Amino acid sequence: MDRTDSLDNIRRRLAAFVAERDWDQFHNPKNLAMALASEAGELVEHFQWLTPEQSADLPAETREEVRLEIADVLLFLLRLCDKLDIDPVAAAAQKLELNASKYPVEKSRGRATKYDKL
Amino acid sequence: MDRTDSLDNIRRRLAAFVAERDWDQFHNPKNLAMALASEAGELVEHFQWLTPEQSADLPAETREEVRLEIADVLLFLLRLCDKLDIDPVAAAAQKLELNASKYPVEKSRGRATKYDKL
Amino acid sequence: MDRTDSLDNIRRRLAAFVAERDWDQFHNPKNLAMALASEAGELVEHFQWLTPEQSADLPAETREEVRLEIADVLLFLLRLCDKLDIDPVAAAAQKLELNASKYPVEKSRGRATKYDKL
Amino acid sequence: MDRTDSLDNIRRRLAAFVAERDWDQFHNPKNLAMALASEAGELVEHFQWLTPEQSADLPAETREEVRLEIADVLLFLLRLCDKLDIDPVAAAAQKLELNASKYPVEKSRGRATKYDKL
Repeated sequence: MDRTDSLDNIRRRLAAFVAERDWDQFHNPKNLAMALASEAGELVEHFQWLTPEQSADLPAETREEVRLEIADVLLFLLRLCDKLDIDPVAAAAQKLELNASKYPVEKSRGRATKYDKL
Repeated sequence: MDRTDSLDNIRRRLAAFVAERDWDQFHNPKNLAMALASEAGELVEHFQWLTPEQSADLPAETREEVRLEIADVLLFLLRLCDKLDIDPVAAAAQKLELNASKYPVEKSRGRATKYDKL
Repeated sequence: MDRTDSLDNIRRRLAAFVAERDWDQFHNPKNLAMALASEAGELVEHFQWLTPEQSADLPAETREEVRLEIADVLLFLLRLCDKLDIDPVAAAAQKLELNASKYPVEKSRGRATKYDKL
Repeated sequence: MDRTDSLDNIRRRLAAFVAERDWDQFHNPKNLAMALASEAGELVEHFQWLTPEQSADLPAETREEVRLEIADVLLFLLRLCDKLDIDPVAAAAQKLELNASKYPVEKSRGRATKYDKL
């Protein structure tokens, strides 16, 4: 992953893309959360009739469509982070730490049980 | 953003977190897309009764909750990318290029119209 | 609302529609919950760039599109209820009762605060 | 299903519930679409780690939780219909007709292919 394609670089290019189109007026956090959710819905749509096994072995065309839906989710996530001044990587790192305490290895091994029911 | 907190580093630490808990059995792309969508729903929940203006000026406590929901979305997105062998940053960079042709500046300036209705 | 268009009638006609196409094999509750969520995402998409005021005063064409997205959500909801043997109207009536105790009038009047923070 | 528990009756009781709490100020269509999507996300959460087979054979406690999530989705759907003056049952009946032409039996039997790829 070279410098050109870093997450932070994408965030900046995306902000320029939005500014050029004067779309900042639409990009408040409420609207961006909605846009992220609707992209997540499109992502889910690709998988809804597949078996779990099929989902792990996508035809090339479907995989490429899924790849671009993932891109859409990430773009709106970066946009939302930009507006809220959140560092997504630092947030994810912290959440991973929190999850490590919510899901101790010995209690959660092999079990998809939510932490509040462990 | 130092090396320790890079996106790729998070992806690897997350994979280790999952392996330790033997959760890989649950992490097929279908299930991960669902998990991402349910986290997107939690993100939306924080904003649903706020005005757009309020969403841009969150109380500190709400902002921190939103920050951790964003983290959850990103963690499942990274997990999904890992299982599908997708580079999310390269995908986002490519999608941004595609959007630049779907939304020419002169046609889309100041208008939130979907490209197929421009 | 005449007998022909009752909710229960729709549920039955939908089951026949699915049976004719041999789609029952795809309609387990997991898949149907996904389909409902992806339709909810399409519903949200129509509103994401609108102001709250615009959302209450839709152009005729948008309102008709929204109307059909609402139909899609309801159809998958009925399908899910069918597979889980749930009566959606009885469930909604019960939930409304539960909400009445979770949100006492005196505590929640004029406040969009979730019950666990009241 | 007696008269007391008809869909229309629920819609009216829900409107009264909202009026008593002075929540109408929050219930524009944009916000209601978000609320519906976040409830859809909670519904999906219950199924995300289950196999399709497990989803069709829920433990009693999970089934009851799912039942109340379905109720939440339906309540916000009714609320949205109320604000947009949409009859959900008529809309669903019409959409079922449309689907019958988009998915002819002979072309779609046994195939979960979206109509635009049939």
